[in-house]
Amino acid sequence: MNKISSDANDVHRVVIIGGGFGGLYAALSLKKAPVDVTLIDRRNFHLFQPLLYQVATGALSPADIATPLRRILKKQKNTRVILGEAVDIDPDRRLVLLTDGSVEYDTLIVATGSTHHYFGNDHWGKLAPGLKTIEDDTEIRRRILTAYETAERESDPEKIKKWLTFVVIGGGPTGVELAGAMGEISRDTLRHDFRQIDPSEATILLVEAGRYILSSYPEKLSLKAREGLKKLGVAVRTGSLVSDIGPDYVILRSGELEEKVMTHTVIWAAGVAGSPIGGILTRNAEATADKRGSLIVNPDLSLPGHPEILIIGDMASFSHQDGKPLQGVAPVSMQEGRYVADLVKSRLRGKSLKPFRYRDHGSMATIGRARAVAQIGWLQFDGYLGWLAWLFVHLMYIVEFESRILVLVQWAWNYFTGNRSARLITGNQKIPNPATPNDRPHPPEDDETKTRKDKVSW
Amino acid sequence: MNKISSDANDVHRVVIIGGGFGGLYAALSLKKAPVDVTLIDRRNFHLFQPLLYQVATGALSPADIATPLRRILKKQKNTRVILGEAVDIDPDRRLVLLTDGSVEYDTLIVATGSTHHYFGNDHWGKLAPGLKTIEDDTEIRRRILTAYETAERESDPEKIKKWLTFVVIGGGPTGVELAGAMGEISRDTLRHDFRQIDPSEATILLVEAGRYILSSYPEKLSLKAREGLKKLGVAVRTGSLVSDIGPDYVILRSGELEEKVMTHTVIWAAGVAGSPIGGILTRNAEATADKRGSLIVNPDLSLPGHPEILIIGDMASFSHQDGKPLQGVAPVSMQEGRYVADLVKSRLRGKSLKPFRYRDHGSMATIGRARAVAQIGWLQFDGYLGWLAWLFVHLMYIVEFESRILVLVQWAWNYFTGNRSARLITGNQKIPNPATPNDRPHPPEDDETKTRKDKVSW
Repeated sequence: MNKISSDANDVHRVVIIGGGFGGLYAALSLKKAPVDVTLIDRRNFHLFQPLLYQVATGALSPADIATPLRRILKKQKNTRVILGEAVDIDPDRRLVLLTDGSVEYDTLIVATGSTHHYFGNDHWGKLAPGLKTIEDDTEIRRRILTAYETAERESDPEKIKKWLTFVVIGGGPTGVELAGAMGEISRDTLRHDFRQIDPSEATILLVEAGRYILSSYPEKLSLKAREGLKKLGVAVRTGSLVSDIGPDYVILRSGELEEKVMTHTVIWAAGVAGSPIGGILTRNAEATADKRGSLIVNPDLSLPGHPEILIIGDMASFSHQDGKPLQGVAPVSMQEGRYVADLVKSRLRGKSLKPFRYRDHGSMATIGRARAVAQIGWLQFDGYLGWLAWLFVHLMYIVEFESRILVLVQWAWNYFTGNRSARLITGNQKIPNPATPNDRPHPPEDDETKTRKDKVSW
Repeated sequence: MNKISSDANDVHRVVIIGGGFGGLYAALSLKKAPVDVTLIDRRNFHLFQPLLYQVATGALSPADIATPLRRILKKQKNTRVILGEAVDIDPDRRLVLLTDGSVEYDTLIVATGSTHHYFGNDHWGKLAPGLKTIEDDTEIRRRILTAYETAERESDPEKIKKWLTFVVIGGGPTGVELAGAMGEISRDTLRHDFRQIDPSEATILLVEAGRYILSSYPEKLSLKAREGLKKLGVAVRTGSLVSDIGPDYVILRSGELEEKVMTHTVIWAAGVAGSPIGGILTRNAEATADKRGSLIVNPDLSLPGHPEILIIGDMASFSHQDGKPLQGVAPVSMQEGRYVADLVKSRLRGKSLKPFRYRDHGSMATIGRARAVAQIGWLQFDGYLGWLAWLFVHLMYIVEFESRILVLVQWAWNYFTGNRSARLITGNQKIPNPATPNDRPHPPEDDETKTRKDKVSW
């Protein structure tokens, strides 16, 4: 067993699992603290998840929304980054076990986020991927773009319709932003790109189980969002549940009514569940998970019975005395990350800290190219003004100065040219065969193929 | 069998296979010709291959060097793009067979390029990937970055050395540019990123079988390039052949001497071979291939015996009366593409065209961040001036206006900040285990792990 000993031996060791908003902000806030920080992540980059939908729809490249963790923490000498996967936690020995080693802690900050949740239908995962990782994202981009390519080569109107039908499940911010961008692709970006099909005839369906899309927003903004989506050609179905997903269909249920939508492209933006670390802490540290799989925490975000284990971000199930659990959004994670860093610092000084309190600065969602709905404090915006607010806030939030400028330049180009330059179909999947399986791959030697009229036959 | 009939029935049909420099420039040059153009490519984008090494080394994102073919040809109404793979050609029926259909032609332009050639050692492909596709590229980027990550977690000095040894095989422009960029990564980009290892201690070896690197350049520039590489910490081994590659070594032979270099990261920049379409035309159209697998063509780039089949780019083996075969570089492909477009237009007017003649405007290669060697006509540059020439020419060549600006912005940032922001480790591969296979995955419960001194054990 290899061993690496640290330089400073008597320093309080803080181990953070996860380099998302929560973990990264915790690490950054410990910059000047007299502690030894180890940040463990499976990936070598911090991902700006709120913009994943822009990668999935070809507006930005993966690197535009991802920054190497080492670069962000380069000058923070008390912090080291480890590329690794935490597979177990031993609270008695204060050890995080990785696939290939272990790290000891004095304080553990768990910021492992959430994953998709298919409500017990895990086999839907392959049929309806969701936006969580760069790989999910390029896969969704591949599916969307390949659908248009395949439709272009198809002649059967029914099959064309199936390829040109896109279903987004979940009317929260992710689903709304994604559906809006998909509407823009069909109505604008691809408008003159094809010769046989008209991309603007594509059907984009946004399915939401509740009464409203963007249910956490004021009703007025929710309705504005719906209006904006309609202008982009997105049909919104509220009060609709998904009862089944197949390779070329989705079944929606609304009360007693069932509808089968024929489509090859379904994207999941509905449920999320806490990461598997939740299960581990439930077993090893008697933690209690809520129904989402997030862990119930004390008012100071520590795990009941384990003051040295702090849970933040999507993994934490935290409620103010007066309200429902906080949502799994970036600002909550960031504030929690900063709070636990302060908590560690206070404890080292032998002081106490007031319970965590989330300050809601508002929320916002874009609807296509130059519209957004935004709620900031008691202000409500929509349309162009909302979009400008969205733009400003998102640029300010993007962690690294460099990315911020480049993303702005890319957005400016996209905005003025109507283009999305990152429309690459990558990955090793084969080009789908638009013909039905019993069609022969090679053309028959009949007279038809030989006539000059049939210039292309499939 | 599905059929798609074209609108214009009596128009001359030009089918182009391949959307690289040759095929794309042929299509663009047929813009105003009274022909029906079909461009077939397996990918939905044109790739600026000369900059692939910048993606492999994290300076640019894939989308920066790739432009959707449909976008480039959006307004060219006589042209359609088909995403598909040509699997056979039937010269008698003038048909290109795809995996799932076929396309008829009156004139066929074959521009399918080249692939890697491991001199009969195809199993080296997995051990030493080369730079040809976006997928190769992100895989190489993953390997380079993961090597540093793994070294950081390793404590055995021998193993660290193995992870920090990188071998590039082939001293042509690709190998030289890649090795230079890798030198820059180790000496500059990653300098302060790690805590246990010093990236600048990495060994980067550039292996070339011939006497000189950049053998097609004047000797003076070749020596300047070697000097420049040395400053970036790249060791150049000329007169060295690769005799074997294994999972953690490369064996180099120089005359009677054999040397075993221990390394996990080998990149292939040596041989290329014509695409499989060459074999198909050898069988079906009595074409003759040279030893590289490129097809011998007439002075007008047509296939002997088949004036309606034109071969361009890396697929064509073309020699001027006075010289050796033209190299497989972008300017040759572009000029050949334009030439065959002119040939088609001349033929339709019943006129003839002079044989193809390549105008050599020079060649250039970068060496790290702000150095290059360049030969333009009778001028020879090196150092900073060479780099400025390189920058200018490459920006002018990049097909689309948008990308040109964005790449410039990205380069400017990289230049001034010394950063490479696209340093993402993506793909579904697992994090490599730095421990040897018989190490236990979990730490032993011995006293050592329990002492405070061993903060991390592997």
